[in-house]
Order: sequence, then C-alpha cells, then structure tokens
Amino acid sequence: MTLTNAQWRLAARPSGLPKAADWQYTEEPAAEAGDGQIRVAVQYLSLDPAMRSWMNPGRSYVPPVGIGEVMRAGGIAEVIDSRHRGFEVGQTVFGTFGVQAYAVSDGTGVSVVDTALAPAPVYLNTLGTGGLTAYFGLLEVGRPEAGQTVVVSAAAGSVGSITGQLAKIHGCRVVGIAGGAEKCRVLVEELGFDAAVDYKAGELRAQLREQAPDGIDVFFDNVGGEILEAVLSRLARGARIVLSGAVSQYNTADAPRGPANYMQLLVNRASMTGFVFTDYANRFPEATKALAGWLADGSLVSREHLLDGGIGAFPEALLKLFAGENTGKLILAL
Amino acid sequence: MTLTNAQWRLAARPSGLPKAADWQYTEEPAAEAGDGQIRVAVQYLSLDPAMRSWMNPGRSYVPPVGIGEVMRAGGIAEVIDSRHRGFEVGQTVFGTFGVQAYAVSDGTGVSVVDTALAPAPVYLNTLGTGGLTAYFGLLEVGRPEAGQTVVVSAAAGSVGSITGQLAKIHGCRVVGIAGGAEKCRVLVEELGFDAAVDYKAGELRAQLREQAPDGIDVFFDNVGGEILEAVLSRLARGARIVLSGAVSQYNTADAPRGPANYMQLLVNRASMTGFVFTDYANRFPEATKALAGWLADGSLVSREHLLDGGIGAFPEALLKLFAGENTGKLILAL
Repeated sequence: MTLTNAQWRLAARPSGLPKAADWQYTEEPAAEAGDGQIRVAVQYLSLDPAMRSWMNPGRSYVPPVGIGEVMRAGGIAEVIDSRHRGFEVGQTVFGTFGVQAYAVSDGTGVSVVDTALAPAPVYLNTLGTGGLTAYFGLLEVGRPEAGQTVVVSAAAGSVGSITGQLAKIHGCRVVGIAGGAEKCRVLVEELGFDAAVDYKAGELRAQLREQAPDGIDVFFDNVGGEILEAVLSRLARGARIVLSGAVSQYNTADAPRGPANYMQLLVNRASMTGFVFTDYANRFPEATKALAGWLADGSLVSREHLLDGGIGAFPEALLKLFAGENTGKLILAL
Repeated sequence: MTLTNAQWRLAARPSGLPKAADWQYTEEPAAEAGDGQIRVAVQYLSLDPAMRSWMNPGRSYVPPVGIGEVMRAGGIAEVIDSRHRGFEVGQTVFGTFGVQAYAVSDGTGVSVVDTALAPAPVYLNTLGTGGLTAYFGLLEVGRPEAGQTVVVSAAAGSVGSITGQLAKIHGCRVVGIAGGAEKCRVLVEELGFDAAVDYKAGELRAQLREQAPDGIDVFFDNVGGEILEAVLSRLARGARIVLSGAVSQYNTADAPRGPANYMQLLVNRASMTGFVFTDYANRFPEATKALAGWLADGSLVSREHLLDGGIGAFPEALLKLFAGENTGKLILAL
C-alpha cells in the first residue's frame, strides 16, 4: 500500500510569530516500516507553546528542529503496520511523531494508550505532557500547602487549567490569570478555581491584590513578562515561583526581558525554580495513576480544544495557540 | 558631661548615587542615658551596599530610613555611660547605632564583642553581618558540594571575600568576579580563590567559560545586572543562585532591569533564591563559633579596608563603596 505523506517542515527560523515563509509543506510517499519498526497514521497533533522555542537556534532543554526537518510535535496515532514485537496494528499510541500524516518509529518514546479509559485527545493533555508538567511542577517544585494561595498564569491553557485544579485538590486557594472574560468564567464556573484575573481587563496588580490579599505562596508561571512582574510584587514570605514557561517572550522579536523586580525574591525570601517534567520520567506511572484517579472521580476536568482542518491547517492552528484563542489544550485533528 | 553629637541625616531620597544635597549634617547635644539605657561612643561605622536600599521609599526587608532621621548604620562602639544592668562602661559593643558620634540605646540588638579574640573591625565583617550573610547564604541556600564550582560576585567585598573562602573550606572550586587586576590578585594570592575574573577587562562570558568549563553550580550574587546574566548563561544542571544583593541596580536612576535570560533557570533546572541573614538569628552562635574557628586556624582571612576622616567623611566614604574602591570590608573609623 503506497500512502502519500504530508508534512510541515521548518523552512526558516522565525523572528517573532512564525510566518508562512517559515514553513515548507511537502508531500512524498510515506516510508514503510522496516524490521523492528511500526508505521502509524497520526490522528491528533499536540499544539504546544514550547514548539516556538524548538524553532529557535541554540541550546534549550531539547535540541532545536533543524532547517528542512519535519517540525517536532507530539501526537496520538493509530498503528497501521507493525514489524515490532511490542505493537499491534490497530493500537492507539502516543509519540513524538512530528507534524505529518504518517510516521515510522522504532518504538522509542512510543506508548500504547487505553482509549477505553479516556478519549484519545486526553492523552495529549491531562494524561500526557500537560498533566505531567502540572503534577511535578506544582507538587515537587511549588510544594503548596493546604490553605496557601496558588496563582497560575495561562490558566485556561492545558498546563494551567490542570495545575489550578491540582492545587484545589490539595486544599489551596487558587487564582487563575487568563485573557478575557469567557476564559475567566470557565476557570471559576467549570474548573472550580476560587477566582480568576483577566489580564486583558487591566489593573493586573490591583486585581491580584484583591484576589490574593495575604500574598501569593506559589506562582506557577507559563507566561513571564508583565504577569511575572505583577506577581513578584505580591509574593508572600517564602514564596515559590515555578518556571514552567514564558510564552509572552517566545514570539517577541525584541530582546527578551527579565523581571525588573526580581529582587522581590530577596525581600520575600522567595525562590524561582525552573524544571522540565521529563526529569521525573521514572515517576510518570505514579503521576498518571493519580491523574487518572482524579479524572475518574470527577475532581479533575480535562478540557481539550479540538481544531478541525487536517494537516494543512497546522501553521494557522499554531498561531491560534499564541493568540491565546484556546480554552483547554489545543489539539489539531487530522 | 555634655557631649556634642554629630550626625548625618537623610535629607532627600536620592535618584542614582547619593548626592551632597541628599544629606544633612547636624550637631546637637548628645542625649544622656536614661534608666535602663546605655550611651555609647561610636568607633567604627559599617559601610554597606544595603544602605542604598534603606534610602529608597517603599517596602524592603527593613523599613526605609525616614527623611530627617539619622542614617541607619551598624557600628562598633564603646559604652561610656550605663544605666542598664547588662552593660558596663568600657565594654566594646556592636549595634545599629546610626551614622553619628554618640548613641543612646536600651540594649536591643546590642551585643558585647570580645576584642581579645579579634580586633574590633572584624566584628563588622567576618564576625558580623558579612560573615553571617556568607555563612547562611552559601551553606543553607547555595548548598555547595565538594568539587562543585562556586562563583561569587563582588568577590573582593566583605560578603564576597568571606563567601569565596567558605566555599574553599568546603572543597569547592571558587571563582571570584571583581573589578580590576589588583582585586583579582588579592582574591587568588591572598584569599586562596582558584581563579578571579575581572569584569572591567571585558569578555566576561568568555572569562567565565574558561574558569568554569563544566558550568557553575552555585552563584552567590551581590551585584545583579550584566554579571547575573553572564552567569545565567553558564549554569550547570541543577544550579543554585543565591540572591544576596544587587549593588549594580541600587544606584541606577533608570528603571532597574531583570536578567533577560532568566529562562536559563528552566533550561538548567536551576533556582534563584533570596534570603536575609537575620532569618537565621537563632543560629548565629553556631555560625560565629565556626567563623571564629576558621579565623583562628588561618583557613579564613578577614580583610578590612579602614578609612580615616571621622564622621564628616561619611558621604564620601559611602561613594567609595559604590565605586568599588574597597578591597575587603569598608569601614569608617571615627
């Protein structure tokens, strides 16, 4: 069976938001599975803020995507050919298959997912990277205690929406920062946050003062920039800032900027700590089991934002992510 | 006995470096000790980078000095009158007596120092604030392990010079950052640092790369600004940045700036943590005992930079501190 693969490749390193000219769309015969390999048909593509950093040159926590290479992406796929003893045709799998319709893999980093337990897209969100990031970042780095105030930025996104709910499960007062009244409504009414702060409504510091009157004990930051500065000005003594991302900085063509008031860390005996969830790989089973349990008992709601349009819509879908148009995890259905 | 007190009071909140017009020199009859009080004659005034932050309005880890108030300063003094059961005339004491020739105190925060054990100025340095800051900041927040690379900024200053030596005592490779060849010589030849980097010689990042080829495990920062950014670009995995000060930012009339590359904390799973040494007050005896022991066995050298000129020279002496003219702890002898 000769299949035609469709792929988005990185054509140039973007300055600011990725433009059409930064991408190259290619079609070619799909490779066949060799001995010890599987071939998969990608069903769902994960759209992640980190993708922007993979497009930059230079050192990050993973190597950059090379010019001309298929763009890196996590996805859910169906096994359509298997010459690998660990996989069977028809299985649904998660892996970093890239932005393409078909992929061949030797199984490294590929895991079978149980679509009887949760719908496939949930494995790109709460039972995937988003959930693991929230779980280890909040619980291991943020270390919230019951009764403390936890603030989350990009709270309506995948990681943010899960982090806030995990903090509620651990007995905290949870304030989400998001852009727009509708997202804020979802945070409070559908995801159980105690309060939401709409940064687009202005007066961010005043809103934070009102919602975190005793200061902020844990800040889980996905955004950076002015939001990080506003939170630094409201820290409680001994606060922990968890650096999970800095989406406000990823697409700026200007020089990135650091938090001007970072010495509030000294005043408040506070810390700012970066982490990468893959460092906790040996504990993924523990985390996945806990997250699945909270999903099952209803204390955790997994929210996905599915886009149609197929592979051709990828560049546009990624821009929706950076425009903050999603509520919940943004996923492109192929 | 009527004594005439001489005092420097804060006349205005400075923008940038303190100017003459920001100070008011006053003379008045020295107050007498009331019941339960002592009167002291100040002998040595401590000149500290933190003084600049006390001159600013707004929240810090201590309240600002009020306009018209005697400038806050630590000092070593002789008890000249005592109506307090805990003190005797003739004793040498440490306390926050302010920038003045005579002070009256109820004994709060005043401690007797043993000038047989070490010369009085050492109690403003290694056996005082500087030593305690280095001890708790390095050992409790930085947590260096033997064989790791520790970098210290403002390494020729009071806190920096002690921190570097403590890291050597704990088996680390120690690199000091200081301004000028002579300071760098002192660090290596007299204080036992493994290497020194002269930030005034340019190529700071290249110098750090050479001296810390495996990355920086602990950075004890007294400076901020470009030096902090240069170190962030050289962090080892799991690095700890100890925020002790940001003297590069204290006197800038521009908006302060944060480290633009703070997301290196994420890439390297690193932390940046502020601390204030007074939080460890219940462990001061342990620290002082350890520091005195290392002084006694010669593994720690206490270096003071004494200025003559008396109380009148205070504003000028403070500017010497911010110009980085001192090697070792800057102290004004009265």
